[in-house]
Parts: sequence; C-alpha cells; structure tokens
Amino acid sequence: MPNNTHTNDTEVRISGQLSEFLSSARWDDIPEVVRHEAKRSLMNFFATSLGGCHDEAVSKASTMLRSFAGRSTATVIGRSEQTDLLHAAFLNAMSANVFDFDDTHERTIIHPTAPVAPALLALAETSTLSGSQLLLALIMGIETECRIGNAISPGHYKRGWHITSTCGVFGAAVAVGKALGLDSERMRWALGNASAQSCGLVETLGSMSKSISVGNAARNGALSALLAQANFSGPVQPLEGPRGFLRVTGDNPDFAEVIEGLGQRWEALNNTYKPYPCGVVLNPVIESCLALFDSAKFSLSHVKNVELVGHPLLRERTDRPDVQSGREAQVSAQHTVAVTLSTGKARLQEFSDQSVADLDLRAFASKVRFVDDASYSVNAARVTLHMRDGNVLSHTVTHSRGSATNPLSDADLENKLKDLAEFGNTGVDAQRLIDAVWSLDRATDASSLMELAAGRRQ
Amino acid sequence: MPNNTHTNDTEVRISGQLSEFLSSARWDDIPEVVRHEAKRSLMNFFATSLGGCHDEAVSKASTMLRSFAGRSTATVIGRSEQTDLLHAAFLNAMSANVFDFDDTHERTIIHPTAPVAPALLALAETSTLSGSQLLLALIMGIETECRIGNAISPGHYKRGWHITSTCGVFGAAVAVGKALGLDSERMRWALGNASAQSCGLVETLGSMSKSISVGNAARNGALSALLAQANFSGPVQPLEGPRGFLRVTGDNPDFAEVIEGLGQRWEALNNTYKPYPCGVVLNPVIESCLALFDSAKFSLSHVKNVELVGHPLLRERTDRPDVQSGREAQVSAQHTVAVTLSTGKARLQEFSDQSVADLDLRAFASKVRFVDDASYSVNAARVTLHMRDGNVLSHTVTHSRGSATNPLSDADLENKLKDLAEFGNTGVDAQRLIDAVWSLDRATDASSLMELAAGRRQ
Repeated sequence: MPNNTHTNDTEVRISGQLSEFLSSARWDDIPEVVRHEAKRSLMNFFATSLGGCHDEAVSKASTMLRSFAGRSTATVIGRSEQTDLLHAAFLNAMSANVFDFDDTHERTIIHPTAPVAPALLALAETSTLSGSQLLLALIMGIETECRIGNAISPGHYKRGWHITSTCGVFGAAVAVGKALGLDSERMRWALGNASAQSCGLVETLGSMSKSISVGNAARNGALSALLAQANFSGPVQPLEGPRGFLRVTGDNPDFAEVIEGLGQRWEALNNTYKPYPCGVVLNPVIESCLALFDSAKFSLSHVKNVELVGHPLLRERTDRPDVQSGREAQVSAQHTVAVTLSTGKARLQEFSDQSVADLDLRAFASKVRFVDDASYSVNAARVTLHMRDGNVLSHTVTHSRGSATNPLSDADLENKLKDLAEFGNTGVDAQRLIDAVWSLDRATDASSLMELAAGRRQ
Repeated sequence: MPNNTHTNDTEVRISGQLSEFLSSARWDDIPEVVRHEAKRSLMNFFATSLGGCHDEAVSKASTMLRSFAGRSTATVIGRSEQTDLLHAAFLNAMSANVFDFDDTHERTIIHPTAPVAPALLALAETSTLSGSQLLLALIMGIETECRIGNAISPGHYKRGWHITSTCGVFGAAVAVGKALGLDSERMRWALGNASAQSCGLVETLGSMSKSISVGNAARNGALSALLAQANFSGPVQPLEGPRGFLRVTGDNPDFAEVIEGLGQRWEALNNTYKPYPCGVVLNPVIESCLALFDSAKFSLSHVKNVELVGHPLLRERTDRPDVQSGREAQVSAQHTVAVTLSTGKARLQEFSDQSVADLDLRAFASKVRFVDDASYSVNAARVTLHMRDGNVLSHTVTHSRGSATNPLSDADLENKLKDLAEFGNTGVDAQRLIDAVWSLDRATDASSLMELAAGRRQ
C-alpha cells in the first residue's frame, strides 16, 4: 500500500485490534448494567419501529421492493408482510428511524440501534440465535459504530455526513458478523466491506431520501458480514488506512478512540432515549415551551418574538423557517416552538403534514431568533417570549428529559412502546413484547421477539 | 433549509436545471458522433463484463445473494443464472469493473459505463425499451456522472473517494430515470435518492470490497430511480445544498461544471478504452516496457534498477511494492514493470494471483523508483533501465494507446470483446453480440442484447 501519510504503530493496527476484540468477546464479559442497557435500547427500538412502520416512506419502499424480494423468512415490524433478511433489515431500520424518535448517543448524535438491531433480528429468523447471543452481538455493534463516530466527531456530522448511516453500517456489519461467529480476519473483512458502503448526507434530512441511507446501513451491514463469511475479502486497514474511512470522512480523526479501553468502558451506557419525535437538540426547547404553555394563558398572536438560547448545534441543525412536511418539521425549531406553544403537546401528531400546513404556525416562524451560547450543553436551552403587551416570559431547561443525566426510566420506555404500538395501528400485543424484551437474555430462541412484533392489522 | 453557506443563483438551481435537461432530452438531439461513442462504450462494457464474469468476487457474491433474489427477470452476463433486476445490476457492474479494464473518463478517472449500463440493461428485460431509448438513457447517465465528477476533481479522488462508485450511482439513477420517463421533479428525487447512497473508498482497491461499491452504484442507482417513480421524494438541492454531495465530498466544488453547456458538449466523447487490464495511469509504463522488451534481449536479473518518470498520479495511485493478489497487482507499478519486462505481455494472465506469487517478480519490486514530473500527462511516461553492465535503456511514450489522442479503433474494441469472451469461458457468440451493439439504435427491443450476453457454459 502507498504510505503517503504518516502512520504510527497504534494507527496501523486499529482495524485489526478492533476485530480481535469483537471476535473474542463473550457474554460472560458483559457487565449486568450494559446487558440491561442493551435491552432498553431494544425496547426503544421496538417502540419507534412500531410508531414508524406505517409511515408513507416505509409503505412506498415496501411496495416497490416487493418484486425484488427473495424468500420470505423475515418479519417486517408492525406490518403483515414478510420479506427476505436483507429487505427486512432495510425496512425495519427505516421504520425505527423515520421520525428520528429512536435512541441517541449524545456525543456523536448517532442513533445506534436503528441500523444494528434490524439486521440481527432478521438474521435470528433464519439462524438460531439465543437471546444472549443476540444481545452480545447488539452490544458489539453499538460499541463499534459509536467508537468510530467518536473518532471523527464533531467534524464529520458538521461537514454534512449523516452519522447514523455512515457509522451505522459498521455497527450492523459487526453485529451480524458476531452473530455469525466470524473470526478476527473475517470480522476485519466485514468492516472493510462496510467501509465500501458507508454513506448518507445531512442534506437529505427532512426528505424521504434520508430513510434510504438508514435502511441501507442495516441492509448493507448485514451484506458486509455475510460476504465476509463467504470469504469475500476486504482491505487490511479499512478504518485507519491512508484512504480509509476515518481519514476520508474525518478531518482530524482521533484513532485511539476506536480501541482505547475496549471491554472496560461501554458506549451502550452512553445511549439515551427520546421523549419527543424530534431532533434531540430540540428537547430542551420543547420542555421550555411546554413549561411556558402551562405557566400562562396566551395565544400565538400575543407573542411578538421568541428568543432561543442554546448550544450552536441547536441553530445549525434546526434553523428551518419554511418547512413543507411533517418530516422537515421534526428538525425545525420554528415549527416546534410554534406548535408546542399553541397546543402544549409534542407528540407525533404535532409533526404531521397537516400540522405543518397550519397557516398560523407557518406565520409564526419569522418570530423565532437564535442566540448561540457554547456554554450551554445540547440538553439545555432558554426560551424567552417577548409579548406584544411588553411582558417577558422565560424558561430555562438545564437537563432535558431523555438526556444522560435525566434518562427515561424503564417504565417510561414501556409506556413509549405502548403509545407507539397504538399509533401505528399494528395490532401488536405491547405487553407481551415488553415482557419478551426484558427476559431476552434467558430466551433460547431470539426470533420469538419478531413473532411478537409482526403486525396483526393492516 | 439552513443557509449557513454562501450560495448564489447558479449554485442553488443546479439539481433543478440538470433534472430539467435530463427529463426533456430527446434522441433526435443527440449528435451522431455521440450516439456512436455510446455504442463503443457498450461494446467495451460487454467485453470487460465477459472477461470478469467468472472472477472469484462475482461468483462468491452471486452464490451468497441467491437466497435474497427476487423474481428472475434479468440476465447475469456470461453466466447461466438469472436473477432480479437489482441483483443483476449489482453483479454485472462488478463483472464489468472487477479488473479495472473498463472505460475511463480521463479527466476524472471515472469508469463511466460499469455503473450505468447494467442498471439499464436489467430494466430493459422487464420494461420494453427500444435500442435508441436505451442509448439515450446511457448517454444521459454518462453525462451526469462525469459532470458531477468534473465539479469535484481532482480533490475528491485524491482524498480517497472511489469516484466510479461515488459518481456512478448518480449516473445509474439518471439513466434508469430517463428510461422510466421521469419528469424533472422525479428526476431530481432520483438524484436525491442517489445522493443518500453515494459511497466507495480508494482504500478498498486491490481487495474484493471495491466491487461492492461499484455493484451498489448500479443497484442503488436503479433503486433511486424506481423509488422516485413511486413518489419517494428527495431533497431540493441534493448536489449543491449546504450539506449536499458536492460540498461534502468536494473541497472546492466547481458548481458550473455540472450544468454549463448541457446539450452542447458531451462527456461521452471524452470516454476512452483500455488496451491493458490495469489502472489507466499504467498504460504508458506498460507500452514503454513492451517496447524495451522488444528492443533488446535481457532478463530481469540484468537490470540494476528502473526509473519511472510520470505525472504525480502515477506514483500516487500505483506505488505498491508488496502486492498479495492479482487484483492488487493491477494497480501496482512494481508488478506491472516486472511482469511486462520479463514476459513482453500485459494480458489478464499477467495479473493473476499466480503471477504475483512469482518470487523473481516480487524481488524486482525494490528496484523500481518513481520520479514525479507534472509536465507529463497521465498518458505519458518514461521508463529507464539501468543495467548491471552499465548500459542504460530508455523509452518514452507520449500518448499511450487508449488515450483520447490515441484511441482504440472500433476494430480494436471488437477484438477486445472477442478476446475477453473467450477468456471468461462464457460460450457467448461474440460476433452476434458485436453486430447487435453496432445496430442497437435500430433495435425495437434492447433486451435482445442480454439474450446474446447470457452465458451458455458454466
């Protein structure tokens, strides 16, 4: 290989060291708290998949792909059709992430479970996997994608890479590779095959195109591992090579992030779960607006303008004054502020196409002003309303619900699943699915989860 | 959308203008010389696909994907199996490009036809397309991917993007979109769906992983257009947006390259075809070595060292002294020099795993020295042999065969197809396929090409 770039001993062995760790990791090595967090991630995954599974994007893709699907071995969550392993991975990842209501790794803003779990769950329907094997593989996938993301954050997302998709494909590849029992060389090939497929642009957020890259992360991750199992070989240094993933998509990658403390600290413990179906940086804004709604009687017409003070990411990711669809509205601070101040709610219904079409809400967008303040964390924001009558109402949230310091409880996650199973009209027995997730480590066959997640209604 | 980056009127309308051009283009608008070049591209495509179709990577992928394939409507070139449209696009693009023996757009080093033709040809087997409809769509696909490549070259490849894959997905999307008759809005969605799937790393060259991104470019391009046809919508500015493809993957994109002179100048006319199965920058090195082989009797052991003078890209892309496989050898100047100086030949056989294992050839690698000279074009090189007896042999090639200024003739392309059809043991009647390509513009059903390209032997 050409050696145009300075490399040191640590850098050149990253893909190899990571692969060795992944292929040798055992369930017995995983601390109980990490095991439990993996189940929480899965609970949240089923919640958002059931919420999203009848979204227009999922339905269109499912219909279009029908004539290209192979043997129907795999469940499409919350829907009545079955399809092949790769297409199920694609569609279920789309469902899980379509509303950006899925889990969030705060440091990178990766949604870790959407690309990884669907690939594994589809595999479990043809290869017999125990519950603990599936959980171990899920933990390895999450560990990998978040560590790769750490190495290139925050520059990678800032440049325009949809990090859930670009890093998720590695997570899915590693998870499926682990479930298949790949040795370390084939695990490295799986990473290499994934590196060839890593993609996804922030520009697509707010359009259906985004769901393609998330779906592909799951599908192509599974493909990467299945090809590696069939001795389809990859490059030696897919991550750290001179023209490998980290250097090409990261401007100043921190290579050590990928391998330091493997098996000692766990990225799954940095996973968080969202109470609202919006870009996670909007959480403290929503809670401030809900508090303001509860604190005083006013209508939107009484508000002269609104000031949002928050971390610069708040503005960078959500300054979208003129949104055309519910999907775009989920990453629009302007719509979010308008709809929560006027309804006192922030459910999926508040981010529908119908809600966006409301002329009063649209007109309100021009009243919203951003103030960057890097001293705020992404879980904090201050919302100040300057009223026409001269009054000023202000509310500050320092740790929004769903953040690492104010996490959703197990019961919150159960309720989220129950709510969203209802929303999607899936006919799924939410309680049975909840029980199956909590007892998954004792299940001899993990495919029972997908039987419970199959839709009973159309 | 956030407006964090300065945009001017030209920039903001690129995706829209390009889509309008593409959806309204007609066969009658295409000059005869461009039509003929499209046929030459297709001739070369069938040649290299037949040469590559029994490569290990293609066979492994075909076997692995069998259980995930849908209805068998599409031909796998040179092989006896059939598969669905998307998988055929994937496998045929892999075959066409696996030896890097396919066509080359010199300015960008894109291989234009491998991602585009397979998607179209697979479509032609289920949707009725006339020969001229297929050629028009192929021309639009090539135009699009090469113009997008122009806008971000040379920085994009230099950073580590495998430009055939990253830009090829746009070419395939547009070609299939044109064949489906998409209007300009859906054509823009097809570009957006493609932007979410653009990927491929130079680090994977020399490993099987490379073929995944090339295969995906064809598959995912087709998927992008089929989804757009089903009203799966994309972003407004997939190319020029603040976090769109051009800015994210290009450090200083030249937006005007995408749209200036559309319909007046044609990138298909900048397509070239390779006489040797190597990285195109090696062509002048090979011809110099062949000339030196013919000019004097010597063996490798007589050579003290070799100096290669050429454009810096020669060194950057081919300085690989320690290759492990035939695949890597195709982009290794060291192996190429050793094998051509010792055999006087540069066919696929000279770039086999067996050839790479030859210890004499391996030992020779350390004798090769590069001298960068930016005054050389990529089609020129000087090879100087310093012999142990003090003699110096030198040969310079200024315009290697297969370059734009010294193109392969129609007869050369026919012979390339005949040679490679034989190499792959495909049983294909090469002459009938050749005749079908030259008369394609008069064919009422373009699917007859694939009937002729189906393998008769295993």
